Amino acid sequence: MEPLFELAIRLPTRASRGLLRALHSQLRAAIINGRLKPGVQMPSTRALAASHGVSRNTVLAAYALLLGEGYLIARGGSGTYIAETLPRSLADKPKAGEESYDRRLNAAWRRRRPPFGRGAPQPAPRLSFQLGVPDIGLFPFDIWRRLSARALRRFAKARPAYHDPQGLLTLREAIAKHTSSTRAVACRPDDVVVTAGAQQAFDLLARTLVTPQRTVVAVENPGYPPLRAALIAAGAKVVPIPVDSEGLVVNGVPDDARIICVTPSHQFPLGTAMSMRRRTALLEFARARNAVVIEDDYDCEFRFADRPLDALQTLDRAACVFYVGTFSKSLFPAIRLGFVACPPWARRTLVTAKEYADSRCPELMQHTLAAFIAEGHLVRHVRKMRAIYSERRQALLHGLHSQFGHSLEPIPSAAGLHLAAFCKTSRDPDTIVERARLSGVGLYTLNRFATGKNVPPGLVFGYGAIEKAAITEGLTLLRRAW
Amino acid sequence: MEPLFELAIRLPTRASRGLLRALHSQLRAAIINGRLKPGVQMPSTRALAASHGVSRNTVLAAYALLLGEGYLIARGGSGTYIAETLPRSLADKPKAGEESYDRRLNAAWRRRRPPFGRGAPQPAPRLSFQLGVPDIGLFPFDIWRRLSARALRRFAKARPAYHDPQGLLTLREAIAKHTSSTRAVACRPDDVVVTAGAQQAFDLLARTLVTPQRTVVAVENPGYPPLRAALIAAGAKVVPIPVDSEGLVVNGVPDDARIICVTPSHQFPLGTAMSMRRRTALLEFARARNAVVIEDDYDCEFRFADRPLDALQTLDRAACVFYVGTFSKSLFPAIRLGFVACPPWARRTLVTAKEYADSRCPELMQHTLAAFIAEGHLVRHVRKMRAIYSERRQALLHGLHSQFGHSLEPIPSAAGLHLAAFCKTSRDPDTIVERARLSGVGLYTLNRFATGKNVPPGLVFGYGAIEKAAITEGLTLLRRAW
Repeated sequence: MEPLFELAIRLPTRASRGLLRALHSQLRAAIINGRLKPGVQMPSTRALAASHGVSRNTVLAAYALLLGEGYLIARGGSGTYIAETLPRSLADKPKAGEESYDRRLNAAWRRRRPPFGRGAPQPAPRLSFQLGVPDIGLFPFDIWRRLSARALRRFAKARPAYHDPQGLLTLREAIAKHTSSTRAVACRPDDVVVTAGAQQAFDLLARTLVTPQRTVVAVENPGYPPLRAALIAAGAKVVPIPVDSEGLVVNGVPDDARIICVTPSHQFPLGTAMSMRRRTALLEFARARNAVVIEDDYDCEFRFADRPLDALQTLDRAACVFYVGTFSKSLFPAIRLGFVACPPWARRTLVTAKEYADSRCPELMQHTLAAFIAEGHLVRHVRKMRAIYSERRQALLHGLHSQFGHSLEPIPSAAGLHLAAFCKTSRDPDTIVERARLSGVGLYTLNRFATGKNVPPGLVFGYGAIEKAAITEGLTLLRRAW
Repeated sequence: MEPLFELAIRLPTRASRGLLRALHSQLRAAIINGRLKPGVQMPSTRALAASHGVSRNTVLAAYALLLGEGYLIARGGSGTYIAETLPRSLADKPKAGEESYDRRLNAAWRRRRPPFGRGAPQPAPRLSFQLGVPDIGLFPFDIWRRLSARALRRFAKARPAYHDPQGLLTLREAIAKHTSSTRAVACRPDDVVVTAGAQQAFDLLARTLVTPQRTVVAVENPGYPPLRAALIAAGAKVVPIPVDSEGLVVNGVPDDARIICVTPSHQFPLGTAMSMRRRTALLEFARARNAVVIEDDYDCEFRFADRPLDALQTLDRAACVFYVGTFSKSLFPAIRLGFVACPPWARRTLVTAKEYADSRCPELMQHTLAAFIAEGHLVRHVRKMRAIYSERRQALLHGLHSQFGHSLEPIPSAAGLHLAAFCKTSRDPDTIVERARLSGVGLYTLNRFATGKNVPPGLVFGYGAIEKAAITEGLTLLRRAW
């Protein structure tokens, strides 16, 4: 049995020092990553030397090193084996002198943690009021597959080229047309920068707009943690600003704020729409102080009222609003495509930042999405889903009213894929959420999205990916856990 | 004719000031982005007021504003029209007070330019020795389409979830196995971070490893401009280090360098492989100074020699090498997927940075790529292409020898998709490249990839996306242009 012959052991030059190192490190690598399984017998030093054209002494030396390090064990006269008890952490555990390895990292990054903690935002219980996800079970994947196959066929015949970091023109045209007609956003294809989801839009805006350790940025509190994370990573001085029933309290924004981030159509996570008075005040603030506004319009394709407010960008006369859109909610999150409709003065810099960050978005996805929008599938899908989400929302509101009338007060909201409610009792939301989780119901506390302690106790229910019957069942279980 | 009825004009509240603003800005937006075409007659103020339930005075005021701004013109008694001569630049040109808008940008970013200038790296002439692109005409897109459709079908049935920012486990398993067997890179699935191409790997490494205005980074000169760009954007003090026939001149690296970036298998753009002596010296330098090495192994699946040198990472015993791989060359650039095989101490931070940057890579592409690798298609495709590229390389070498024996000296190279050659005559490479371009032949000067003037005159020929016959024809035309 000569397991090594199946391995890609490649030995460099004839200089024996290099040979020994290479042989040792490759054998070690094969053991660590499992190509050589624990307990397997190693070939004899003679056989290995012969098969790889190296001296037997080199192989002996490599085996000796591996024996010393505990990767191999010698069993009396019967040969050399891969250690059975090889701890997986062998390669992970810092050896002597390795403790300081992570000092090689930028100190700020070393401290940073994922915005929602490691892993998925929430472990998935049986009945999950998960936030930020649409119902992909109802997505017309057959159409997507057809358009995707067509894009691939065309792409295969096209001339190879590195494409525009701003995004494919056909996609930017489709986005400009769609967004101006559904959200009254004033933009031309030239104003659109295609990004890897909304998160990359936030990251690129943070990097290009923030001067580290100087720029003051106002964010909503409660708000969207990953946006906050991108701003902090770019060196912004982030100031959380309270939100009330009219949206961001513009009076609370410090005079020196140069970026103000808002979710005016459907505040995340409270769900309120920003009043026209506040919108006007915010735009006036930005105009007067040469500040900019980042408008995150994350789920506003789904509106359930007759007369929705327009995007803030529509009212912008000082070229200060960056409108961020995403297809994670209207299509599916795995598409990882979003965009910024940006003022002309910022476009070139934003595109340069995109090129520095990852060159551009995958062309095949862009082609497919462009066709999906241009051929009317997006509008049809949104229309269909709007009716479904509206029913779910009604079921949720009804259940909250009938089962939690005395304990929860839903926050008025006319759009989106989630609903928040304030707690009217003194029960601790964290305890409720934890007990609900144990009963198989997933939901969120408001304070999960807050900075500091000044957000009233409350709960957040996503209804994008949970069916009507499950909503009712989930609320019943929640009632019991309560 | 009532063109406005087709428009998504949405009016906010009944407060007339907000109404006027909204009506004005939406009409203006519709004109700017072309939904209202030049020359079209506007509806009467009366009709518009009635259809949108606003007072006629509001509509009159909005029209008056638009007339004043030049978006509308009044034609005697016949009504109001969209201005025919509406300059497209109306919205782009800074108005009074707008000159300073771009002061809102971070000053450093405002100055930055794309690494290769705006647009494609090179305009595409008829016969193009384009760099960095494989021959996608020979890619098995039928297989890719089948795997992609299967991934979509499975995905459509899967439970919705936000996935791991590090990358899908199946893809990381496939990458770890493939890279350890083809490049002897010692990595486990846990060590792999999936990125949006090599460029995002560079960007994430720059952001997490560089302390702005402090970290000294050594890069090869000549080298790869987009890597340099990402490092500078992260605030690194970038020091260009000369490259000779053995690769990076390690003696030239300043003592305080904390990151050293190299292309050891196939120097970009010279094409040489780093000698074992230099590799050992570089790793010793990094170990002694607690520095790290970024190894860009961009096109080394294509090797034409019998005994390739291993990856630098294979020899690393101080957990200091970040191995960056990409599928842009072995598959096709539009896939926008690459990876870092990183030391355990850096992984968590790198994954956090990835999550901040864009959450994660598109799952559908990841699923498809994982299957493509796991089912052996990558290895088969690389094997097929290696033979083809080898022939092209021979044709190029033969042509250079026979037609440019006295004027060009090819730089020895045993891998990759391009070849560089030094000019032995005093002819100016820029002039040659420009004259070649006018004859329909695209190629590059060496100094395009250099910082400063200390790189000898030379030319670079990509042969990834040019057929054998075209190579010969291209060289003949180049000979004439010479």
